Amino acid sequence: MKDLISLCQDAKRTKYIMNRLDSKAKKDALLKCADALINNKDVIIAANEKDYKAGIEKGMKEGLLDRLKLNDDRIEGMADGLRQVANLPDPVGICLEERIIEKGLKLRKVTVPLGVIGIIYESRPNVTSDAFGLCFKSGNSVVLKGGSDAINSNKAVTDILRKTLDDCGIDPDVLQLIESTDRETTKEFMKMKEYIDVLIPRGSAGLIRSVVEEALIPVIETGSGNCHIFVDESADIDMALDIIYNAKTQRIGVCNSMESLVVHRNIMDKLLPAMKERLASKNVKYRADKDSISLIPGAEAAEDVDFATEYLDYMMSVKTVDNIDEAISHINKYSTNHSESIITSNKENADKFLREIDSACVYVNASTRFSDGNVFGLGAEIGISTQRLHARGPMGLKELTTYKYNIEGTGQVRD
Amino acid sequence: MKDLISLCQDAKRTKYIMNRLDSKAKKDALLKCADALINNKDVIIAANEKDYKAGIEKGMKEGLLDRLKLNDDRIEGMADGLRQVANLPDPVGICLEERIIEKGLKLRKVTVPLGVIGIIYESRPNVTSDAFGLCFKSGNSVVLKGGSDAINSNKAVTDILRKTLDDCGIDPDVLQLIESTDRETTKEFMKMKEYIDVLIPRGSAGLIRSVVEEALIPVIETGSGNCHIFVDESADIDMALDIIYNAKTQRIGVCNSMESLVVHRNIMDKLLPAMKERLASKNVKYRADKDSISLIPGAEAAEDVDFATEYLDYMMSVKTVDNIDEAISHINKYSTNHSESIITSNKENADKFLREIDSACVYVNASTRFSDGNVFGLGAEIGISTQRLHARGPMGLKELTTYKYNIEGTGQVRD
Repeated sequence: MKDLISLCQDAKRTKYIMNRLDSKAKKDALLKCADALINNKDVIIAANEKDYKAGIEKGMKEGLLDRLKLNDDRIEGMADGLRQVANLPDPVGICLEERIIEKGLKLRKVTVPLGVIGIIYESRPNVTSDAFGLCFKSGNSVVLKGGSDAINSNKAVTDILRKTLDDCGIDPDVLQLIESTDRETTKEFMKMKEYIDVLIPRGSAGLIRSVVEEALIPVIETGSGNCHIFVDESADIDMALDIIYNAKTQRIGVCNSMESLVVHRNIMDKLLPAMKERLASKNVKYRADKDSISLIPGAEAAEDVDFATEYLDYMMSVKTVDNIDEAISHINKYSTNHSESIITSNKENADKFLREIDSACVYVNASTRFSDGNVFGLGAEIGISTQRLHARGPMGLKELTTYKYNIEGTGQVRD
Repeated sequence: MKDLISLCQDAKRTKYIMNRLDSKAKKDALLKCADALINNKDVIIAANEKDYKAGIEKGMKEGLLDRLKLNDDRIEGMADGLRQVANLPDPVGICLEERIIEKGLKLRKVTVPLGVIGIIYESRPNVTSDAFGLCFKSGNSVVLKGGSDAINSNKAVTDILRKTLDDCGIDPDVLQLIESTDRETTKEFMKMKEYIDVLIPRGSAGLIRSVVEEALIPVIETGSGNCHIFVDESADIDMALDIIYNAKTQRIGVCNSMESLVVHRNIMDKLLPAMKERLASKNVKYRADKDSISLIPGAEAAEDVDFATEYLDYMMSVKTVDNIDEAISHINKYSTNHSESIITSNKENADKFLREIDSACVYVNASTRFSDGNVFGLGAEIGISTQRLHARGPMGLKELTTYKYNIEGTGQVRD
């Protein structure tokens, strides 16, 4: 097992190898990696079974075990993911701006890879190939630190991908896995600013918070979604019910599902009882403020913390407001700045909401569930950024690049 | 004096006020702020004299005293800076992308302010108005933490600007100064992630490093420039000499000046003695590697640390290489990724250098001194980013914005 420093140094070294790969080399290698996953299904499944058994023995919860599990279908899904990314346009080397500046110097602003990306994630072995595919296509070297419960699966997947890269004549160190499973190594890794350019944590709010607190490397925060729907007084009630039903119940465990309803006082009498009826089949539970609680029989009283909670469950908070300004300031206060939606027939309020809500994705009369890299036309997604620097909302290949200025002259000096 | 938490909370509150200001309101307010600085010159100069006297008493170095000093000319320069920024196009609300996505949803990607920007800087009171101007024009609230030696000057300038904002009907808390001068407050400030969206340290490498290490808020690193010039074997010697002379000696204290010469072995006999002669009038000193030292009489032997040093002085390091690959890997190893230049007549090598050098600004046959927001056509500059996330190289107004997705529908839900 390579020590952490050597591993990070190797990653930095391969950054310059990645710079030399052209679009065709990257595409061909990714297609071969997809084939290799399929051809080595048995090896992956055998390794995954070790992890799965160990998980059962240590009493992992069913949801976590399900995410850990790999089978034929899931491995085919991983291979398909790599093929899809392989066939996307190369995001590197695109000229963003071009102009003649002082003394005839020719300036071009072109996209380049971010460099070396560190991905810290939980025990979901499919992330291993997904994250590699996106980083590789965008010209980045990648160092993966997956959850320790998936270590055998991650090693198997990484070994297969690295061998395939090697067969393609590409230095396999463009993809590396940190095999040590102790927390100290992860902490040390997050301080390797000299070698790693960006950290992207993928997983629970707790994981992300700990990375932000420990890391010296710049971090892109993803995935935390306390999403709101505001039903304005002029809303079409049926539309509001359809959207709430979809945003709350279609998939409860995802970051773009609704966690909190904000309702205008003048429409709550009509909306809330109808909503309770509509969501009854899903057995949704409510934490309602004092003005709305009597309209939702069975609701518990909301405490302040409820408005800041991402339930990821059949549970939602309900907040009453007197006007759109109060709705906007409530949402801006409690939101994680992921996705929010207004349901309204009032164009002025819709525009105000779009302008003043401080979130990555702001909707008018639509479900928050659309916040997704594929839906937004990015082709693929490494996560949904909830921070402000670099990238906001769904992050695709382009968001894994930065840029540089190339300036060509004929001997110019500055006056 | 407001406590730090209240101050940060007020900054966050005003973020939403900034969102509501239109282009005209911002422009008018900045022009009035410029007038106010001129009309209150005496107040500013009186406050600055207190700082200056205290500086002399505590034995501040001449260079620092010079940067601390404000006089009529400098205050006019500050006012001109605000006017220049006032007249630039508003970078907020620009539609970057627009398309119809699933089910006819209309998606627009539009620029928005970063939010609340914290600027940590040294005792240069002109930065107080410069930083405010750029942040305000780009729709950001700003919290300033200037060097303690300039506290009276900074207070005077901030008071005048805040009063002017108030006169324009704008909440003056969009601009705040941390008046406490103890280090603990600065440390605490850097952890105010809940309220401050981005930190931009401006100043010495030491200041920037300490911010990166202490901050929980995302940081944009600026200004550290260990810039290289590589003279390839096919270089035009006269052009190389002109460019080296300009890049090394035109202004020694700036981040885009040359600190290190990398020279191809096959041209060093011609280049180095001529260079020594050309730079003799500036009394430049050299730290040369063992292969080049005999060609530069009087040079000291370079140690490894010299190649990583930003001298900001009439001093440079010299490194000999056998080929362009060695030059590129030397530069990528020691550079701060700010600006590098190749002098060559070989098109293939020029293209290789542009592609493989991992710096924000990469030049062919030109001085590194051109790396500057105004020269690059950005209109103004808050600093030169040497990091990879968000912005690289000169940062203007656009680089002080981020974006959000606005999605308009008619009741769409996700399948």
